[in-house]
Amino acid sequence: MRPIITLLTDFGTADGYVGEMKGVLLSQAPGAEIVDVTHDIPPQDVETARLTLARVWRRFPHGTVHVVVVDPGVGSSRAALAVASNGRFLVGPDNGVLSPALLLADARVVELAIPRGASATFHGRDIFSPAAAALARGESIDALGRTMDAPQIRRTPEPTRRADGALDGEVIAVDRFGNAITNLIGLRGGTIEVGELVIPVRHTYAEVASGTPVAVVGSTGFIELAVRDGHAATTLGLSRGSRVALRTL
Amino acid sequence: MRPIITLLTDFGTADGYVGEMKGVLLSQAPGAEIVDVTHDIPPQDVETARLTLARVWRRFPHGTVHVVVVDPGVGSSRAALAVASNGRFLVGPDNGVLSPALLLADARVVELAIPRGASATFHGRDIFSPAAAALARGESIDALGRTMDAPQIRRTPEPTRRADGALDGEVIAVDRFGNAITNLIGLRGGTIEVGELVIPVRHTYAEVASGTPVAVVGSTGFIELAVRDGHAATTLGLSRGSRVALRTL
Amino acid sequence: MRPIITLLTDFGTADGYVGEMKGVLLSQAPGAEIVDVTHDIPPQDVETARLTLARVWRRFPHGTVHVVVVDPGVGSSRAALAVASNGRFLVGPDNGVLSPALLLADARVVELAIPRGASATFHGRDIFSPAAAALARGESIDALGRTMDAPQIRRTPEPTRRADGALDGEVIAVDRFGNAITNLIGLRGGTIEVGELVIPVRHTYAEVASGTPVAVVGSTGFIELAVRDGHAATTLGLSRGSRVALRTL
Repeated sequence: MRPIITLLTDFGTADGYVGEMKGVLLSQAPGAEIVDVTHDIPPQDVETARLTLARVWRRFPHGTVHVVVVDPGVGSSRAALAVASNGRFLVGPDNGVLSPALLLADARVVELAIPRGASATFHGRDIFSPAAAALARGESIDALGRTMDAPQIRRTPEPTRRADGALDGEVIAVDRFGNAITNLIGLRGGTIEVGELVIPVRHTYAEVASGTPVAVVGSTGFIELAVRDGHAATTLGLSRGSRVALRTL
Repeated sequence: MRPIITLLTDFGTADGYVGEMKGVLLSQAPGAEIVDVTHDIPPQDVETARLTLARVWRRFPHGTVHVVVVDPGVGSSRAALAVASNGRFLVGPDNGVLSPALLLADARVVELAIPRGASATFHGRDIFSPAAAALARGESIDALGRTMDAPQIRRTPEPTRRADGALDGEVIAVDRFGNAITNLIGLRGGTIEVGELVIPVRHTYAEVASGTPVAVVGSTGFIELAVRDGHAATTLGLSRGSRVALRTL
Repeated sequence: MRPIITLLTDFGTADGYVGEMKGVLLSQAPGAEIVDVTHDIPPQDVETARLTLARVWRRFPHGTVHVVVVDPGVGSSRAALAVASNGRFLVGPDNGVLSPALLLADARVVELAIPRGASATFHGRDIFSPAAAALARGESIDALGRTMDAPQIRRTPEPTRRADGALDGEVIAVDRFGNAITNLIGLRGGTIEVGELVIPVRHTYAEVASGTPVAVVGSTGFIELAVRDGHAATTLGLSRGSRVALRTL
């Protein structure tokens, strides 16, 4: 089977940075399958990249190498990492973006050596792609650098429980459709409070009339706020960090 | 030969939904070739998706599986379909988006069973990708569900003929270059009327001066309105549904 | 090894033009690996496409076929080219976009024959994709057309030296992060003048405080102007063609 290498960046594609990385990967790991996850993470938005990676990385087959480059600190002293976790590999900067894989008990982390002559502004091409190609060729992660004990971790904020039993949470992402994804894990039967508004948790968007707000358990298990045939974030005034609460009946 | 699976969605890529689908496809159809057609259909714009699919699907080799997910009704009672048509396969919602394949005489359509535990908000991952993977592995479409007799059909609007012989048509799409694609099928020699403006049908944009409106027979056979080195839709005030007429000399 | 065909266009993906090209390529070069470089070149921006190609084309393995379609003159008398250069192949219009490959001493250039029935508006599908597929199948470039002696060339503007030794240059591109890439090739130790502002050339963005302008030697060797954690082009009022100067200490 051909090795799979995925790419998750904030580079866009027009400037050619992604093209350079693909060229390096296909030159150094001949026959690899290159899969675009996304290049449209908002520039330098590590948090969105982390959440996107969380959704995606374990859906791919064992042996897949995920290259994750959202890297505001490129050229600083932040480390460059390679990770083996849950049968997959990941490479990326030590800024928390790889946390979904780092948090598993079996995660093995090494700090990548910086090759002489590497550009100080483009580690995606000169450090992460060569490391990913080596992993795709079947080289050992131990050959890529020395063990790293305390990589930076980012976590999805946890809801807190009020005295009255409600859970205080927040919006962690707004998707392309305007759905506001919260950090609340819930089952049907509860209600979500957004300011003065009380929105019941339903099975699906289609249970309410067009234009009506609705809460559903989304495809990752988190409760999402939507407006049927509309854009919930705009209608309800929600963005990342907005406060919401879950009251279970 | 490796099976080809194409993706045509309105998901964008940043939220990770497309990445999840690619992971499922590569896990369930190992070795398949994943090809992005587009993820930039405007959100929930079934009509644009239908026209894009119409251009594309028969250009691919026999055996290709097209996954088409523009699905405002996800989670409602709309059926999920798999189609065999003209030697290719398609999966997608029963909202007319698959019409280009459904309209052929040899089309075979089945309604996909909904697996237990499928997310009510993300059939692309939980229903359409597994069905596409099964088809890519060579499983029979008949194993995926029961025959569906009356799928929803959407058609490109037909021009109507006036008493004086002119054809009344409309703009069906505006492309990235601002070209307005009409539902008029024509040969050179005619003229297109846009309000008071009369625009001759030429062989190519290059036959007129920069900044000048021109009509040409586009790459699908429909007449398109363009402005050389400009943006016709803006200059001429055209959008989907704008009325235009063809007068043959 | 499967042949690699890359795509670099200004088509976007939503209209289906790219999908049509991929279908033609996979039908005519079965088993080829299709790699997206970008489809997000600003519409008809030949200069951005040329610079993106310059970064990318030699990163790919020998034998790669690059399809480059940014083509404001489609349908005019401009020639359609196939090029063999430095072990790679390229196809695209004769408008200078292929210059990075044309400028090498070993470049071999042929003018593609226009097949009967080719659309006058979509040479990407009807001329460039079939030629790329033929090259990917291993056919000789000489079989595709007759030798072309004087293809159109575009060059990055050269800096000029002032009497006082400073180099007068300009911004040649602004990337997604707002970094302004100049035509100045430099080493650390110099300073860049942007109007009244004097900006030292450092090793990396991370050597200055957040919000501070900095110049660095970018990943292609050209000096770039950046603002740490900011958008230099906006902050410094720079766009393509803005004048900058390099003074070496």
